[in-house]
Amino acid sequence: MNIQRSEEQVIQVNESFARKAETLMPELFYQDIEPYRIVEAVEDPSAIHGWSMKDAGSAEELSGIVLGKGDSVILDFGDHRVGTIRFDVSPVGSPPDAPLYMKVIFAEMPVETAVPFSEYEGWISRSWLQEEHLHVDILPASVEMERRYSFRYVKLEVLDTSVKYKVSFTKAIVRTVTSADTSAAKPLQHSDPELVALDRVAMKTLEDCMQEVFEDGPKRDRRLWLGDLRLQALTNYYSFGSNDLVKRCLYLFAAYPNDKGMVSANLFIKPKVIPDDTYLFDYSLFFLSTLHDYYEATGDRNTLKELWPTAYRQVELALESVDERGVVQDLNSWWSFIDWHSELNKQAPSQGILIYALKQAERLASELETGQSQELAERIHQLEEAAIEQLWDEKQQYFVSGEQRQVSWASQVWMVLAGVLEPERSSELLNRMLDEKPGILPNTPYMMHHLIEALILAGNTERAVLEMKRYWGGMLGHGADTFWELYNPEDLSFSPYGSHLINSYCHAWSCTPTYLIRKYGL
Amino acid sequence: MNIQRSEEQVIQVNESFARKAETLMPELFYQDIEPYRIVEAVEDPSAIHGWSMKDAGSAEELSGIVLGKGDSVILDFGDHRVGTIRFDVSPVGSPPDAPLYMKVIFAEMPVETAVPFSEYEGWISRSWLQEEHLHVDILPASVEMERRYSFRYVKLEVLDTSVKYKVSFTKAIVRTVTSADTSAAKPLQHSDPELVALDRVAMKTLEDCMQEVFEDGPKRDRRLWLGDLRLQALTNYYSFGSNDLVKRCLYLFAAYPNDKGMVSANLFIKPKVIPDDTYLFDYSLFFLSTLHDYYEATGDRNTLKELWPTAYRQVELALESVDERGVVQDLNSWWSFIDWHSELNKQAPSQGILIYALKQAERLASELETGQSQELAERIHQLEEAAIEQLWDEKQQYFVSGEQRQVSWASQVWMVLAGVLEPERSSELLNRMLDEKPGILPNTPYMMHHLIEALILAGNTERAVLEMKRYWGGMLGHGADTFWELYNPEDLSFSPYGSHLINSYCHAWSCTPTYLIRKYGL
Repeated sequence: MNIQRSEEQVIQVNESFARKAETLMPELFYQDIEPYRIVEAVEDPSAIHGWSMKDAGSAEELSGIVLGKGDSVILDFGDHRVGTIRFDVSPVGSPPDAPLYMKVIFAEMPVETAVPFSEYEGWISRSWLQEEHLHVDILPASVEMERRYSFRYVKLEVLDTSVKYKVSFTKAIVRTVTSADTSAAKPLQHSDPELVALDRVAMKTLEDCMQEVFEDGPKRDRRLWLGDLRLQALTNYYSFGSNDLVKRCLYLFAAYPNDKGMVSANLFIKPKVIPDDTYLFDYSLFFLSTLHDYYEATGDRNTLKELWPTAYRQVELALESVDERGVVQDLNSWWSFIDWHSELNKQAPSQGILIYALKQAERLASELETGQSQELAERIHQLEEAAIEQLWDEKQQYFVSGEQRQVSWASQVWMVLAGVLEPERSSELLNRMLDEKPGILPNTPYMMHHLIEALILAGNTERAVLEMKRYWGGMLGHGADTFWELYNPEDLSFSPYGSHLINSYCHAWSCTPTYLIRKYGL
Repeated sequence: MNIQRSEEQVIQVNESFARKAETLMPELFYQDIEPYRIVEAVEDPSAIHGWSMKDAGSAEELSGIVLGKGDSVILDFGDHRVGTIRFDVSPVGSPPDAPLYMKVIFAEMPVETAVPFSEYEGWISRSWLQEEHLHVDILPASVEMERRYSFRYVKLEVLDTSVKYKVSFTKAIVRTVTSADTSAAKPLQHSDPELVALDRVAMKTLEDCMQEVFEDGPKRDRRLWLGDLRLQALTNYYSFGSNDLVKRCLYLFAAYPNDKGMVSANLFIKPKVIPDDTYLFDYSLFFLSTLHDYYEATGDRNTLKELWPTAYRQVELALESVDERGVVQDLNSWWSFIDWHSELNKQAPSQGILIYALKQAERLASELETGQSQELAERIHQLEEAAIEQLWDEKQQYFVSGEQRQVSWASQVWMVLAGVLEPERSSELLNRMLDEKPGILPNTPYMMHHLIEALILAGNTERAVLEMKRYWGGMLGHGADTFWELYNPEDLSFSPYGSHLINSYCHAWSCTPTYLIRKYGL
């Protein structure tokens, strides 16, 4: 065992697991895509973020467009793309007596081509805003941009040429990249075109996030997060079937626990695997959950056996946080994720997630005959009782969370998913919640996924489909090519980062309609 | 013969000359240079452009400097450098959860690190301003920047990292490039330290402009201009002795004349040789002048013979512009260069240059026994008589130029260099001019060179040295590491481009102190 120390972390590297993850490196598939048309961003109060794209010509017209200082052209590549770009640029006029200075902006959404990034004042790094400044010294030139971008639109903007020449662009080609084998996934056959559309866009979302690992979002953070991985893996079993990629990601997390054996909330993959120094209560438990789902989908007993100790260790560590009443201790820090909401108290939903994970642990322990089943069953019982006794508010008829006894949808949803209540009571609770809309609402497709699955498991399939269509269909209505990281129908500009410019509009955790529709035969 | 046509030009390519130029491609010499120290730009009303550099630490301290969003550090590479740069950058803090976004500014002068380039509003392309925006996705990284820059200072500015990490820089190395063989040039041995300093900086200026061709300036335009080539070649004979590089440049110009046989004022070298569509009366004649000087320095009779027809053709074309009075016709267009001055009339100085070039032509014709000497001698006589009769103003006792009978130093200087007056009258004229300071003064080291040489040829060596020390020494006084494109002691912010930010501070045409000191034994 190799120990890595930094100021904040001690990492116990399991070299054997790390090597196994390395051997599971997926094949990447590339495809060259030409622009579909030329567009223009126009102010449009009815469009999301106030901007929409207007047709401005066919792609063939590009070569005839001559651009001088301050001019720009926006290429529409027809759908969301993840990959690199190349283009040719030629001088028009006298021989170029100065370099070409230009900017290239990659946009998932029209607004990104319209609002200058210099206006960005969000709190996460503006380095995620997809723009490049280029000098081209020798013209004509074939420009190959090295970095990978996530976009549908590419804006080519001439910052300066010289008074003696202008430029024109040709042969703009995007080379997309994914590790998803799209030939392995069949389009949904369904009489409801809305569900067909949701399935198609959800699957495209997953495809664009499948790279050397399951990334959370190809625009941002391009990283392997446990919360996203769990949902991607579930959707993957019903689409691309890249089960080895799930296995690779599980081994990656298991290879780099900290000195307590806790897996990190996320991993950096390059230049070498580094576990982030963020550890989250719920995400660590989702290691077990992802292993559980992987075993259910594949029956791969070897992997289950090998990774069980890591998975079980997450349970042990989570149980250390349980107080004498049998309730997960609340903390002031960012200790559990649940949802992107600054006001959300994490205690009750974390209690739900702990029970949910323990039940999966019990099944796996029983499968492996580890002798831990009995003890696990007892802990589940204690935690469920405590949930009802300590966290159920008789007066409000909702689960409450934290010292302030906060009502949130997250608390109800996770208690239902954990099976704390009888199905009938679960169903009644969720329906009432949807009608009364109390407390803290969901902010993300991630939380919404859990609401939809809770509705289904509580037997409210019809309402589940309705809510799914309302929410994910709402994004489609706003022109989504892939599903977004963040979507609050009541606040379209919502961003936990201070600016919707930096939001990710192709985000793994929103890919689950494919899973929900196909698994539950919606 | 290969004919190239564009809208404005028809080029008659002499393939044999082009191939010969290709075979004369010089060897390039590279040298790795470490930073000399860390500096800080401080406002300083006594410094040129209002900024000077303050010592801010030794180069060894760089690795200990931690930079977050908005922070920057300026490296001083100790002298003017032309080349590429590489550096290592490492994260400090948590694992980098976002790319590093940074800007790199290359500065010949302190002001370039201090005044944002966004404030540039000059009329030539801002693409010459030496700045790059970089995203570094994977950290730590070794960054190798591809483009060649011209600078002494490098400012590394962090535009953003993330709240979780900062960066530090190490191993910043400049790889300089030149085709000058510095081992071939000896430092000046002279009792006057001022002249030693002028010679050293002049030679450094030439060195940094010597690349695959004699460039005008490595910051801008990085191009082969005939006006610069002539002065670089002269200085080269007294320093690096890269005579084949002069030969290469002569063949390049001769290979791409237009359909009239006129050589272009300058050539673009990459991606292939393209003659600019700028043709200048004086610069075309300087082809002959450069050939004359080359032959005088090398005795290379083969090259002289081969290029003589091209050289003589420039004389024929120039003579077509002479009116019935025997005076070069004035034009409203940018037809002759002479100096960077928007008010300067070009007629009289061009008359001087024509006579100057004809005298060199006569010498070469006589050397080659072409039978043209007699005719040339007659034309010289006519032009000299016309210069006196038409352009000498008896009342003002100065040569005048154009319809407005403008007095300029350029006119006096070129008439003297052309030998239109007896040496004694020349001497009297220049001394009076320097005392009275009439009309249009020189704006560039290029024009100043001609003034100094005119003084020497008129026998005023003492005044020549004085003026040279005042002018080039003035640049040294302002901290010049290399001599500048533009320097007007009365107007330190002078720029013909609308901003001194875009001026070139290592410019070939200012390298002649080495030539003047060494040729004339000053």
